[in-house]
Amino acid sequence: MVPVEHKLFPDGESYVRFDGSVEGETVAIVQSTYPPQDKHLIELCLLADAAKDLGAERVVAVVPYMAYARQDKRFLSGEAISINTVLKLLEVSGVDKLITVDIHNEEALKRTRMETVNLTAVPLLARYLAEEKGLSGAFALAPDRGALKRAEEASTILGGGFGWLHKERSRITGEVRVEEKALDVSGRTVIIFDDMISTGGTIVAATELLKKQGASRVYAACTHPLLVKGALKRILESGCDGVIGTDSIPSPVSVVHIAPLLARELRNEL
Amino acid sequence: MVPVEHKLFPDGESYVRFDGSVEGETVAIVQSTYPPQDKHLIELCLLADAAKDLGAERVVAVVPYMAYARQDKRFLSGEAISINTVLKLLEVSGVDKLITVDIHNEEALKRTRMETVNLTAVPLLARYLAEEKGLSGAFALAPDRGALKRAEEASTILGGGFGWLHKERSRITGEVRVEEKALDVSGRTVIIFDDMISTGGTIVAATELLKKQGASRVYAACTHPLLVKGALKRILESGCDGVIGTDSIPSPVSVVHIAPLLARELRNEL
Repeated sequence: MVPVEHKLFPDGESYVRFDGSVEGETVAIVQSTYPPQDKHLIELCLLADAAKDLGAERVVAVVPYMAYARQDKRFLSGEAISINTVLKLLEVSGVDKLITVDIHNEEALKRTRMETVNLTAVPLLARYLAEEKGLSGAFALAPDRGALKRAEEASTILGGGFGWLHKERSRITGEVRVEEKALDVSGRTVIIFDDMISTGGTIVAATELLKKQGASRVYAACTHPLLVKGALKRILESGCDGVIGTDSIPSPVSVVHIAPLLARELRNEL
Repeated sequence: MVPVEHKLFPDGESYVRFDGSVEGETVAIVQSTYPPQDKHLIELCLLADAAKDLGAERVVAVVPYMAYARQDKRFLSGEAISINTVLKLLEVSGVDKLITVDIHNEEALKRTRMETVNLTAVPLLARYLAEEKGLSGAFALAPDRGALKRAEEASTILGGGFGWLHKERSRITGEVRVEEKALDVSGRTVIIFDDMISTGGTIVAATELLKKQGASRVYAACTHPLLVKGALKRILESGCDGVIGTDSIPSPVSVVHIAPLLARELRNEL
């Protein structure tokens, strides 16, 4: 391990320095890009570029939470496809391989020349729910079609079946609408699985629908608990019985540790 | 002109969108990268990359204040040379030409394949001091050798000669020491010229030295008035009679407008 000296100059610029040699090494830089995203991204670029400049043979960026992954297409004319730009920035900074976890849309990773690996924390979440929370047999719900694979994967561990909702988000207001869909959840425990929880609008809408349809208990599980601006309070007030996430982003619900997942992948570099 | 729609998502990610066509055009994107530097840099990258992706033929980035320009070499082993990284980020985002103003060290621009132009606002500053403040005949002082060319250029307009000090900055604490040097400034008005004023440590040290040597009045002029954390108050309290800067960075002393300078350079693109 090489420690990184890190500070901010008085004007807010980042300063990074490797406190040890990286020459000839494969260097894994672990940097999650949660808020402030831009600061974390620039720091990662500075570190990767410095590593290469200092003689590192190979740079592996381990980015558990990948910022800008939701802006993965041009929803309105003239928009930036931000994730494409961000991947270019990492590549030009010398990143040879990018390891991330439950990126919003895996397709985005196909647009870069870097080697990429998208790990999933869903089994870790499902196992935690089954073993630590005693929720074996719960129904796994995807709040939209994009999360379906995750709910299906969780259900192989929870054993209580899976289903999905249709969600629509206004590209202008950001408001979320969940289609009224009949689900066979009466009297059951339901766990909503999503890649991330940001403002919580999706979870609130889904929780309300599930409770209306007679679900006895509703939980939310996500890999990336962004939980901006009072999201957790809003979710719990909507009737949701609990929220869990991983420590890809530090938060009050980051109970599942992903270090073993990352370590297992990094062992391939030995 | 094409307006840019700009907003922050609730989690702090930037969103940018061109509200009009840029197809087949030479697009000049004007974005100064003062604090928050990383946010402004990422926005610039998103815009440049989107412009190219939307069919722009050529992208000219107009960056009056260039962030990270002071980290232009490896002062201590293991350090990032941040300006090199930042220039790579702009280039990979599709910037063909970079126009900046009084960058800390022009040498840094030689390390990129982008076309680069480094304009100087020193004549604008000197003319403002002579014409608006009545300071013709003042002595132009460079607080270190790096600023010497600027002081010399200012003196061709002010007509009162020029000189320089030796400055040392601790790479560990950031503290500034100005060498005690005898200057022929007794009873004279002196204007300190620097590329930027950040915490103001340099200006404070130089002002104290100048006053000790009998200077009747001391002013500070810079292109980039960063003025972080009470710098202006500290400078004025040290005996400095006034500070001026350009609007490359918005500040209380941004009295000199650089738009004409930028416009003149952009005319070369017509």
